[in-house]
Parts: sequence; C-alpha cells; structure tokens
Amino acid sequence: MIVIMRHNASTAEVANVAARIEQLGCQAHLSEGSERTIIGVIGNDRAIDKAHIEMMSGVERTVPVLRPFKLASRDFHPMDSVFPINGISIGGKEIVMMAGPCAVESREQLLETAELVKAAGSHVLRGGAFKPRTSPYSFQGMGEAGLRILAEARQKTGMPVVTEVMSPEQVPLVTTYADILQIGARNMQNYALLHAVGEAQRPVLLKRGLMSTIEELLMSAEYILSHGNQRVILCERGIRTFETYTRNTLDINAVPLLKQLSHLPVVVDPSHGTGHWNLVAPAARAAIAAGADGLIIEVHPRPEEAMSDGEQSLRPDRFAELVETLRIIAVAVDRTLEP
Amino acid sequence: MIVIMRHNASTAEVANVAARIEQLGCQAHLSEGSERTIIGVIGNDRAIDKAHIEMMSGVERTVPVLRPFKLASRDFHPMDSVFPINGISIGGKEIVMMAGPCAVESREQLLETAELVKAAGSHVLRGGAFKPRTSPYSFQGMGEAGLRILAEARQKTGMPVVTEVMSPEQVPLVTTYADILQIGARNMQNYALLHAVGEAQRPVLLKRGLMSTIEELLMSAEYILSHGNQRVILCERGIRTFETYTRNTLDINAVPLLKQLSHLPVVVDPSHGTGHWNLVAPAARAAIAAGADGLIIEVHPRPEEAMSDGEQSLRPDRFAELVETLRIIAVAVDRTLEP
Amino acid sequence: MIVIMRHNASTAEVANVAARIEQLGCQAHLSEGSERTIIGVIGNDRAIDKAHIEMMSGVERTVPVLRPFKLASRDFHPMDSVFPINGISIGGKEIVMMAGPCAVESREQLLETAELVKAAGSHVLRGGAFKPRTSPYSFQGMGEAGLRILAEARQKTGMPVVTEVMSPEQVPLVTTYADILQIGARNMQNYALLHAVGEAQRPVLLKRGLMSTIEELLMSAEYILSHGNQRVILCERGIRTFETYTRNTLDINAVPLLKQLSHLPVVVDPSHGTGHWNLVAPAARAAIAAGADGLIIEVHPRPEEAMSDGEQSLRPDRFAELVETLRIIAVAVDRTLEP
Amino acid sequence: MIVIMRHNASTAEVANVAARIEQLGCQAHLSEGSERTIIGVIGNDRAIDKAHIEMMSGVERTVPVLRPFKLASRDFHPMDSVFPINGISIGGKEIVMMAGPCAVESREQLLETAELVKAAGSHVLRGGAFKPRTSPYSFQGMGEAGLRILAEARQKTGMPVVTEVMSPEQVPLVTTYADILQIGARNMQNYALLHAVGEAQRPVLLKRGLMSTIEELLMSAEYILSHGNQRVILCERGIRTFETYTRNTLDINAVPLLKQLSHLPVVVDPSHGTGHWNLVAPAARAAIAAGADGLIIEVHPRPEEAMSDGEQSLRPDRFAELVETLRIIAVAVDRTLEP
Repeated sequence: MIVIMRHNASTAEVANVAARIEQLGCQAHLSEGSERTIIGVIGNDRAIDKAHIEMMSGVERTVPVLRPFKLASRDFHPMDSVFPINGISIGGKEIVMMAGPCAVESREQLLETAELVKAAGSHVLRGGAFKPRTSPYSFQGMGEAGLRILAEARQKTGMPVVTEVMSPEQVPLVTTYADILQIGARNMQNYALLHAVGEAQRPVLLKRGLMSTIEELLMSAEYILSHGNQRVILCERGIRTFETYTRNTLDINAVPLLKQLSHLPVVVDPSHGTGHWNLVAPAARAAIAAGADGLIIEVHPRPEEAMSDGEQSLRPDRFAELVETLRIIAVAVDRTLEP
Repeated sequence: MIVIMRHNASTAEVANVAARIEQLGCQAHLSEGSERTIIGVIGNDRAIDKAHIEMMSGVERTVPVLRPFKLASRDFHPMDSVFPINGISIGGKEIVMMAGPCAVESREQLLETAELVKAAGSHVLRGGAFKPRTSPYSFQGMGEAGLRILAEARQKTGMPVVTEVMSPEQVPLVTTYADILQIGARNMQNYALLHAVGEAQRPVLLKRGLMSTIEELLMSAEYILSHGNQRVILCERGIRTFETYTRNTLDINAVPLLKQLSHLPVVVDPSHGTGHWNLVAPAARAAIAAGADGLIIEVHPRPEEAMSDGEQSLRPDRFAELVETLRIIAVAVDRTLEP
Repeated sequence: MIVIMRHNASTAEVANVAARIEQLGCQAHLSEGSERTIIGVIGNDRAIDKAHIEMMSGVERTVPVLRPFKLASRDFHPMDSVFPINGISIGGKEIVMMAGPCAVESREQLLETAELVKAAGSHVLRGGAFKPRTSPYSFQGMGEAGLRILAEARQKTGMPVVTEVMSPEQVPLVTTYADILQIGARNMQNYALLHAVGEAQRPVLLKRGLMSTIEELLMSAEYILSHGNQRVILCERGIRTFETYTRNTLDINAVPLLKQLSHLPVVVDPSHGTGHWNLVAPAARAAIAAGADGLIIEVHPRPEEAMSDGEQSLRPDRFAELVETLRIIAVAVDRTLEP
Repeated sequence: MIVIMRHNASTAEVANVAARIEQLGCQAHLSEGSERTIIGVIGNDRAIDKAHIEMMSGVERTVPVLRPFKLASRDFHPMDSVFPINGISIGGKEIVMMAGPCAVESREQLLETAELVKAAGSHVLRGGAFKPRTSPYSFQGMGEAGLRILAEARQKTGMPVVTEVMSPEQVPLVTTYADILQIGARNMQNYALLHAVGEAQRPVLLKRGLMSTIEELLMSAEYILSHGNQRVILCERGIRTFETYTRNTLDINAVPLLKQLSHLPVVVDPSHGTGHWNLVAPAARAAIAAGADGLIIEVHPRPEEAMSDGEQSLRPDRFAELVETLRIIAVAVDRTLEP
C-alpha cells in the first residue's frame, strides 16, 4: 500500500501516519516529493484496512500495490492448472467443448440434445435443473427430476455433466448428480454459496458476474480455493455495458488477461456473451482465437420451443459447423480440438 | 408484445407468426407499414417467451409493451404503501432515518453508537452481524453474537433494528432478532434468498444491486411480494459506472422514478452511494430533496478504527449536523422529519 | 508516479528503472517490500510518459500520484472562483438559474419563453442556435438567425445569454452574440474547439461528456484555462450507464466532488440529466441540495410542439413552482436564490 | 413508431393521439389490449419527433420500429460495399492490415517503421500528425511536417496512408496528403467534422466513440454518407466500461453485428481496444475470427521511447509473428490475407 498525503500535510501528520503503520505491524518508508509526500508501506499490508489510514488527518488517499488475490494468482502458482474430469482434461493443450440446452425441459429433449451435441464434437453436457429467472412467473427448472435426467444422459453418452447450483443447501444434492458445479453470474458474490462449493468434492465452473471486474472474479475464485477446492474454472460470459443491441458485451480482453494473471482454466460462454444465436459462432471463434481453454454453448434442437434462452441457442447442425471451423483456429493458437 | 417483421418478410411468414400468437392464447393484430409489418399481440402476453416468436422466420425482433412487474407497480396499487414497524411508520409523510455502524464490532461499540445516533435523530438502528466481503481474508462479522447485541441495543434505545441476512437458512435466526431484514446489493438476484424472505414475517429492505436496472430491482421486489410478504422497502445505494473517483454512482434519478413506477417506500444509502464520508452529507440532502422516504447511513464513533467501511462512515457529530439541515429540506418537499 | 516492479524483478532491472528515472530529470526512491519493490519518482513527473517506464523489463505497472490537472485544481487555487457576467455573478453565495428552450425555433417562441422564464426567476437565458443532432435528418438549428433572436431577447429582458458553439470557426460569430459560450457534451474532448474558446473573451460553460470521467472534465477545463481563459463553468449533465429507464444517469456525487477538487463554479443540467420532464424538478432540487452553484433547465411554453427535447422540457408554470421550492433548499445549504 | 398508452388512458386521449398522428402525415392503427391500448404509426415516421406524441395526455411512451439509419443499412444496400484504395481493396475477401506508429515523431522513426511493417505484411501505413490528447501539456503531434513525412513514406513503400483529421478546417490540408481520413473516437459525434469529410474525396475510417452505441456509430456514418461520401470504413476500437484492468473493453460482438446491420467494411483496432501490448495479438486474432475486414495496429520499433501510446504498441517482430497466425485464422473464416 502507498499512502499519498495532501499537498499541505504537516510534518506532524506525516509522522502520525508513519507511527500508525508501524503500530499495525508494517514499516513506513517516506518519499518527499516536490508537491506531495508519499509513504510506502513495507510488509504484508493485506491485513491493513485502507480506512484506518485514509481517515487520518493529512491523508489524501491510499493506493494498493499488491493484488488482493493470492491462491488464484500466477505469482503464487506459475504453472497452468490442468485437471482431469471424468475422462477429459481441462486447462491443457486440448480445447474442451461444453454444450447442451439452457434448461432440462424433459427426458426426451435432453437425451436427444445430448446425442446430437456429442456427435457434433462436445465433450461435456450442460443443462440447468435449477434456473435463476428475473421473473417469479417464469419457468424455474425441473429441480431434482432434471438432475436425474442429466445423470441418465451422462450414462448414455459418457459425457460428464455441468449444471448450476443456486444455494448452499442444494450443494449436496447437486454434487450427487453433477461432475462440475456451475455458479451462475448472479451468484458470483453469493459468499455463502462460494463457501459451500469450496468444501465440495467437485470442480466448479465460476461465471463472471455481469457487472463484476476481473479482480472480483479472481477474488470469488479465491474464496473457493481458500476453502480447499483447487479445481476452479473461470468463465467469461459477457458484461453489462451501455450497449443495448446485444444482451451483454463479451469481454474478449478478459481471456488473455485472466490467463496472464491466473493459473486457472478459462472458458467462454458466447451464448450469454452475445444473447443472440447469430452472433454465437463468431464470438465462439473469437474466444478460441484469444486463447480460451474451452467454450460452453447453449444448443437446442428446436430453439423456437425452448422454455428459456431460445433466442441465443444454436441448432445442433449450426453447432456442428462451428466446431469444424474451430479446429482450424485451434491450430493457429497451438491448441488441439479432438473429436 | 409487439412483433417487428423484417422489411422483406413474406406474407406467409407474417401469417405463420400470427397463427403462432393465436396458438399461444393471444390475438394477433397486423399493421402493414411502408417499410415493415408489425404485429400487436393482444391479451396477457407475459406468459409468451419472446424467443418463441423471435426465432420464427421473418421476425426481426419483439418489443415488450407491458412492464414485467405487477404487484410492485403503481398501476396495480395506486396508493402509496405505508407500513408500521415497531412504533415508526415508513412510506408516509414522515421521513425515516436509519443509522449505525457498518458492522457490529463489539457490545461497547454498538451500544455507544446506538445512543449517539438516537440522540442525533435516528429512528432505526442499522448494523451488520453477517458481512459479505469481497475478500475471504477480511472480517466476516460477529454472527449470532452480533444479533444478540443488536437486540440489546433495541431494548435500551427503543429503536427497531435492520440487519442483513445472507442465505435462506439464516432467515429464521435473523428474524428472531431483527425488525427489518436487509437483502444486500450482491444478493438482489439471489432468488432462493428472495423466496425465503418472501415467506418471513418481517419487512424487507431490498438493496438495488450495483449492476441492476430499476426494472430488475422491481422484479426482485416482485419475487418477495409474490411469496406473500407485502412489506418491501426499496433501497437505492449507488450503481457501478465507469467513474473511478467515487466508489459508486448514486442514481438520484431512481428516487423519483421508483416513486412513480411503484407504491413501495424508497430509501437511499448515501454511504455506499458515494463511498467517501465527505460526500455523504451532500448526497443525503440530495436524496431527501429528490423525494426519498428515508435514509440509511453508516455512523461510527471512530471511523479510523472501524473494521469495515470506515472511509464512508460519518462521525456522530457530523451525522447530527446533517439531520438538522435535512429538517429544512423536508419542508421544501412537503415532508416532516421528527426528532 | 510510483513504479511497481514485478514480484520476481531482478536487482539489475530495478537499477535500470532507477537510472531511467534519473535520466528523465527526476529522482528515484526505492522501497523494498516483502513481495514487491516499489520505486517512488520524486520531482515533477507530469512530463514522464508512463509508457517510457512501463515498457521496461521487470516493471508491472505505474501508479500516478499527482492529479493531472493543475490550473483547475483547488490545490493551485484554494479560493472559489467567482466571476461576474453582465450583471450577475456565478460561483458565490447566489445560486444562478439558467433557463430557456433547447433550440431557438422562432422569434415569437424565444421572446415568449424569455419573458416567462425571467418572470419565474431565471437569471440567464439559454437557447441553441446550432444544434448537434445524432441524425443528419433532424432539425439542425436556425444558425446565425437564431443568434440574432437571442440578442434581441437579451435586450428586451436584460438576461445574459448562453448558447452552444460547435466548431472553432464558429467561435468569433457566437462570441459576437453570446455572453457565455457553451461546449456541448459531445464536444468535451474536441480539443481544437477547446483551444479556440480558450482564446475567446467570454466565459465558457463546459458540459461533461456523457461518458467522461470527472478527471477528464477537469482536464478539458485545463485546456481552456491553459489557453488563457480563466472563466470556466463546469456542468454535470448526466452520464451514460446501463440503466435504460432514464436517458442519462445524473451523477449527483460529481457536484460535491467537483467543488472539493476544483475552484471552478459547478452547475447542473437536470433536463439532460434525466431526459424526462417529470424527473426534472426532483433532480433540480437534489442538485441544489448537493451544493451546485446553479442550474440550466430546458423550458418550453408548448413542449409537445418543441422541435427538439420536448420530452425533457418543463412548462413555464412548473418551472416557476420549482424555483419556489429551491428557495427553501437554498437556505438549508447556506445559499440564496434571489428573484 | 408505436405509441403505448397509459393503462387508464381515456377514449378521448386515444382519439387525440390518433388525430395528431394523422395530422403529422401518417396513419394511426389502434390495437386495444387487455391492459393497454397501443397505436401503430403507419408511414415514414422518421420525421415525427417522439416528444410530439409522448408529451400528449394519456401516453406512456413510444417505441421506435424503424432503425434511424438508412444509407448505412443493409436493408437499403444488401451487398457488401467493397472499395479500392490506391491499389488495395477493402470490404472484400481480402483482409487488410494497417500498421504504424501512434504518432509521427520524426522522419527516421516513420520511414524505419514503414519499411518494417510493410515487410511484416501490412498493406496500409498508419501514423498521426495531429494528436488529440487529454492533457494540454502532452505532445500534440508534428502537424503538417508529419503529413509530409507520411507522404514520403508512401512514395518509398507504396503503401496508402491513413491519418487523423481533427477539425473541419484541416480537411483540405489532410486530404492533400492522406489516402484515408481518420475520424478519432472523441470526434465521432463532431458533426461539423463529419459534414466536412462527407464532402471530401477520400475514404473515411470512422472510429467508434468510446462512449457510443452501435446505433450511434451507424448514425455518424449516415452523416458522412448523406453528404455524398460513400466510402466509409467502420472501426471498433473498444468502449468504456467499469473494468479498470484494461484501458478499454474491445466489443467483439460489434464485429458480426455491424456486418449484419450494415454493408460497410469493419476494421478493428486492438491497440486501443486493449491498451496493453501483450493483449494486442490475442485481440487481433479474435477480431479476424469474428469476421473483421481488417485491423489497424500500433507498431513502434522502440515502444519504450514512443512519444505516445508506447504501452500498447507492438514491436515489429511481434507484429510479424501475429500476421503469420492470422493467415491460418483467415482460412477458418473463408478469407485470405495476402503478403
């Protein structure tokens, strides 16, 4: 932390701040500039609340030096995290495709979709059993019945399953059925839930909140990591901006930046990232070109009948075409996309 | 809902869309313009998923006509909702002041603060026992011990207590101690939690998410109302924008707009809305001038020692000065601020 | 400027950066922390391009210490700037009201409006002769004919006139007719225009860009000040956010913050700040309660016939009512609002 | 335009609105729903100011049906616009690379860079002679001397030149030297300047404002097209969001969306779109994968000595490596990238 004093701060005020820093267990290092005195805080200052300094007389503001995340950082863990999930591996050279419907709507719909996406090149099956919806009057998901259908599809296709968990008390139930626990964008800072999945024995797909910074995403990963679960997959899924022609703005910069800042795998959700099916394929190609470790895409055999997110779901044939073009792009970024 | 067809949509495409609308239980009303055909959907179209229309051939987009909230709307409930809470009343002519520390830190700190804010003109005591923090390494609140201290302060001062509840399973516990259940900004779309407080026997203070639109805030209120709890207080607490000199941008426009769109009481949190103590008083004055029904303000006797949010906490004497100027502004907006 | 080195930067890299800083005319002050070395740059570092340091080996990033504005800052000019404009004074204890139509539409319309707003309590007449419009097919203003009508209204009512200038070559013409030159939000970073009004002999009303930070607003003021014109009035007029129920989000926090950071007068435009006439009065009251030195408000005798911005224009009688409530709020903030 | 009446609007209010629409030259088409009456406006309603309807009694709001741009739209001009520029062609199957320094700093620097980027695969040379800077104390460009150096580099290398023009009066001068006139992001809504380049005999590279929607970008293109210049190249260069780890957020969705909405060529600027050199290559790859017609990239032989934007400039060798990977991605999207 660096403390920037006001331009007219007195010698006594500077001395008081320095004394406070030492009292809090760190060392103070003064630099007197022409217009300002600045004080460097030496030591592990993550424990110092900035208010304890900023509220002192003569202080203008403080500036953090250390990034607040540690377990999630590449400084702490320089090598890429690569972890196996029921026969596939994520974070390594292989690109991982996750596909399936927004919501499990029926046994027939899910099993049909699962077969189609597997044939088209998907490695993991996605599908929601518990659906967070902005309206209390919308379809809220099939619940446990949906989880059972997902498990059946896994058995039939061999694909591991990723599905959302919405509250701490659902964690044991969802863990019974799912291979990857998904934390939705609106729950990225639901700390009780992060704590619960941090103690679960399953990898976690952590979606970036639609108005969360990259730093906040990494801090939410830190919650999970610090509770003992080392298998966290970061997911960029679009952020909210002033643009209204698209549902969200896919933050493509986040992909290489997360790979630089963190050792955790990064996947992209171009369905939510764009909100419209005819932007999904270009955005998916962009994500792989930017260095993503995988994609999670909504696919529905009849989007015009989907119970949610139909407008951003690909038909299986379009998904299959997309996968073929991704194989070429994988070469350009020194990755592979296996059948 | 209005359906806007592509400019080159065929007669058959228009007919198909009309047929689909009728099949979904509504009537279709065609208007052929010079460049586009538009189709009005007559009937209660809240149940029609826009994707079911937008994915049809020849459709450009749909536009909603009805606001998605109903129980929260003034159309549905034209008169202001006014409800009593342990001796005070919110939503009426009287402005309600809520004040206290960000977090309960100790019995001494809370009781001292409670006496000071009551003397300065506060009607309700605020204080967090469970604290959502972006870092897993920060102080997370005193938990149930904090709730007991809040209850003791209520007994000593007579002020009702507002405190945050963070997960569905905490609702029974917090309800035992609190007069108003607070839903924090990061949980505004935690639907499991909204469901739980919707069944609780306590008024709810619902904070706008820092990334949430006014429509989404009203939809979250709708969740609570639709589960049977009619006592919802809306709280504007600043939104996230590109501006970095302030922690958040207080959306002052939201105050009169929420009063027009909804019958529910509206309070403002100028502490989070600005993020810096020396902006709190101007923002608080602005909120009352804009028509807010109350304020919730962080006050700490020694902000430089606060365990959280010290930089945005007022000292009790500054809070008392603020209340005096608010009494004058109350007159300008035909309200009263009682001692 | 502070230079933050990477956590594994070598001694040689640190030494190179220090040498570069000295070569650029400043002194380097090293602080070796447990996880990072930081280097304070002592001296006037405003001339050092951050890239010249950030591109060096071993550097993680730089952090500015000095605010980039100087002439606009309160550090440089601690007392409030108060300047007279044709019989009125802005920046002092007196609140200044500016009102009139968005655009001059005809002689009759402007003269009628001028008389009405003067009677209602306005001190300055606003009205656009050159109109920046997002569509090339919209009304673009009356041009010089509009300026002549504004001058006639000034003569009849005694009110000074504020009107927009859109390009450098218009500055001499507009200066002939106007008492205050307005720079529109979309031109806040039109540097050729800022240069031109910086050499004009008229006060400038500088509107904040709809997606400009407070720092950028002050830097644009700095352009004008540095070219010799000391009479700059800052104007908060709403920023662009994700909220769509309002045209813009009025940044009420900006009012007290600008007053703290700068000595320049601050006025607020609640018409653009909200975009809807029935939010204008609450927002105007909020602005005065937050400490604004004045308001600029769109008033039209028949908003439903206005050639632009009718939806955010007040009728004269509503403007008159607003002014009366502002007189009470002025008392609360120790200001006066004279007839 | 569709007019949505309030839920309690009277028959007389509906009739008045219908009469007004007919008076304004269009036809009114009523649809009486269960909760609202809506009125479709038939005819060319681009000329109707929404305020003329919204300010009428009983009206809740209006919704536009027609997109406000016409000449820029694909509806109006279904085929891709492809135009030749001094030996190259943009908008067709060939991807166009534009590269060079942010600013012309000296004859040596520019000629060296021009040779290097040409050898690495660039087709067009970029370089600024007039530089818009947020600080009046920063380097403002070499002016006409810089233009002459650009012309010399064109002669030596055969590459056409793109350079920025900042004000209407500079247009004749810059047109003398440049092959493509660049409109900078901060001038995207400088309508006097758009008017001037609309009458120039040169293609225009129009950068999206960092605060501008896609609709506004297309409306600014419409200004240029409507003044007679049909050769407009749209440029996505990142927008401003709440994220602070990157300078801007590259809106990758804008690429396919602009291609769908408009016939004009689309290029991407990954230098400004990210703000950091080590994110430029991934973002550039993403842009081509998403369907961009070209890229404009800042390249400097010694970024650590650049007079502006060094932190986001690629060294020539890294630029050359990037071009090689782009050749592979071009194949995936059915394009070519010629030497």
